[in-house]
Amino acid sequence: MYGIQSWGDTLRLLVELSATAAFALSGLMEAARKRLDAVGVCVVAFLTAFGGGTLRDLLLDQRPFFWVQHTEMLWGVLVLCVIAMLFMRQRHFEVTEKAILWPDALGLGLFTATGVHHALQALMPGVVAVLMGLITGVFGGVLRDMVCNEIPTAFKDHRPYAVCAFAGGWTYVGLWTFDAPGWLALLGCLVVTVGLRALALWRNWQLPAWRA
Amino acid sequence: MYGIQSWGDTLRLLVELSATAAFALSGLMEAARKRLDAVGVCVVAFLTAFGGGTLRDLLLDQRPFFWVQHTEMLWGVLVLCVIAMLFMRQRHFEVTEKAILWPDALGLGLFTATGVHHALQALMPGVVAVLMGLITGVFGGVLRDMVCNEIPTAFKDHRPYAVCAFAGGWTYVGLWTFDAPGWLALLGCLVVTVGLRALALWRNWQLPAWRA
Amino acid sequence: MYGIQSWGDTLRLLVELSATAAFALSGLMEAARKRLDAVGVCVVAFLTAFGGGTLRDLLLDQRPFFWVQHTEMLWGVLVLCVIAMLFMRQRHFEVTEKAILWPDALGLGLFTATGVHHALQALMPGVVAVLMGLITGVFGGVLRDMVCNEIPTAFKDHRPYAVCAFAGGWTYVGLWTFDAPGWLALLGCLVVTVGLRALALWRNWQLPAWRA
Repeated sequence: MYGIQSWGDTLRLLVELSATAAFALSGLMEAARKRLDAVGVCVVAFLTAFGGGTLRDLLLDQRPFFWVQHTEMLWGVLVLCVIAMLFMRQRHFEVTEKAILWPDALGLGLFTATGVHHALQALMPGVVAVLMGLITGVFGGVLRDMVCNEIPTAFKDHRPYAVCAFAGGWTYVGLWTFDAPGWLALLGCLVVTVGLRALALWRNWQLPAWRA
Repeated sequence: MYGIQSWGDTLRLLVELSATAAFALSGLMEAARKRLDAVGVCVVAFLTAFGGGTLRDLLLDQRPFFWVQHTEMLWGVLVLCVIAMLFMRQRHFEVTEKAILWPDALGLGLFTATGVHHALQALMPGVVAVLMGLITGVFGGVLRDMVCNEIPTAFKDHRPYAVCAFAGGWTYVGLWTFDAPGWLALLGCLVVTVGLRALALWRNWQLPAWRA
Repeated sequence: MYGIQSWGDTLRLLVELSATAAFALSGLMEAARKRLDAVGVCVVAFLTAFGGGTLRDLLLDQRPFFWVQHTEMLWGVLVLCVIAMLFMRQRHFEVTEKAILWPDALGLGLFTATGVHHALQALMPGVVAVLMGLITGVFGGVLRDMVCNEIPTAFKDHRPYAVCAFAGGWTYVGLWTFDAPGWLALLGCLVVTVGLRALALWRNWQLPAWRA
């Protein structure tokens, strides 16, 4: 049992780190496209990587923030920014965007699960917990786009993103309600979110538009 | 006495529900105009309806948020979004905009009064209480416009909106200072805010512009 | 000793007031350029002057906000807005922009020092303290630009601004770690920030751009 736990923890840490890096990279590239300077690139990367979780903690009134407890995350994103600015060129962007699709989807699932978990532990009702999960997973990207003066991609590209997290969040809440062990709820949320996201990208699903 | 109280509570609930619906509808229509997808439409509707009160509670450090205590409000706005996306067409927008002017003005007054009330109960000075009232009434719309990548309408359309809430807020603070009963302060704030707003729309008052 | 303390306090208050006025003025002018109405001008001025410190206090979970304790600051900015709208014309803008460069740089240094100080007192690690200093000094301007629907100047004009505050913040943290007295840490932070900012403006330093 302990073996599974510790193996799971390592796996989880790996997913979390790669997801944070994926989010930061998507911020980096957006900032570079907008021709921001070095400061702007770093700030947008930080906002994308840490914005969602920080907003959730603000709303749930939980302190300390995870990046206060794990300042090595801050340093890691800073190092990532410096490396990217030294070695990454515009022609790498398309490749990188493909390469981060998987860690990004994993991150969406994991961050959603984390958000739901925190909210449920703070005795929030199910619908609020799912909302907190969505905010954790999606609002990093929303803040990135707001700072870069764009309408958030998550709200207008008609490709299911938040919707996958929504389904994953309810999976977590459902399993939690039936007293499933924590790792199972996490796994369920991950599988549903990542599975739906993969399906959506593969089959090119489109969200319904407003029929004007 | 109890009769008045309970009658007043019902009336207040009705105003609150119709105001929230009016705010959500204004978010919906803005999102539709910007051609956001289903997710975007819902998020903008939520932000417009709940953003101002949530920001106030964040600043006053008050928990739980009202939408955590009354999750049926969340469901209501979600249902409203679904119905609107199924049945509402662009040609309905102008009619709707006219139709929500009154609930919107009532909502502005009521939300301002609520904001001022919360702040006064948290022992804030008068000017801070009025500020909190303004934030409650106006910042839902501000967040809506910021997400939709527009300069907030409240700041640039030269029609008195926040100014009405400002006057209403001071009315509330004044009546509170003279120990007027709660319903009277609420009524005063509502009458001043809605009255000024109606006058402004009727007489087409313009805020002074910066003489460049 | 007491003499120095009290002389220092007066000086500090003067710097703080002139810095707040400088920040508010930069908000005013940005709002006027965007042709906002009277409400918009006031809101943007308030956001620029108080946004950074308020965001810091939200993140550090510290209450009351400084503008709740010192409501005369709110009145001061309001009066400043009214005077500016009555007497300031577009042709004064360029002069004002030059004139506020010094109070703005002083304010950047002072606000950074204040942010770092609050964070260190809340037992935050050094890197988080510097981050809070940056947020205090820089995010007023960021919020101003976001509301005015611009990419924040601090992120794209390639002139060192946040970077100066970054260096100043680390100076404060360093002096604090070696148990230097408070006024020395404040002075160090101010000298480094203002010195670097002045050098950057004088020598026309440019932040590295992303080599696309």
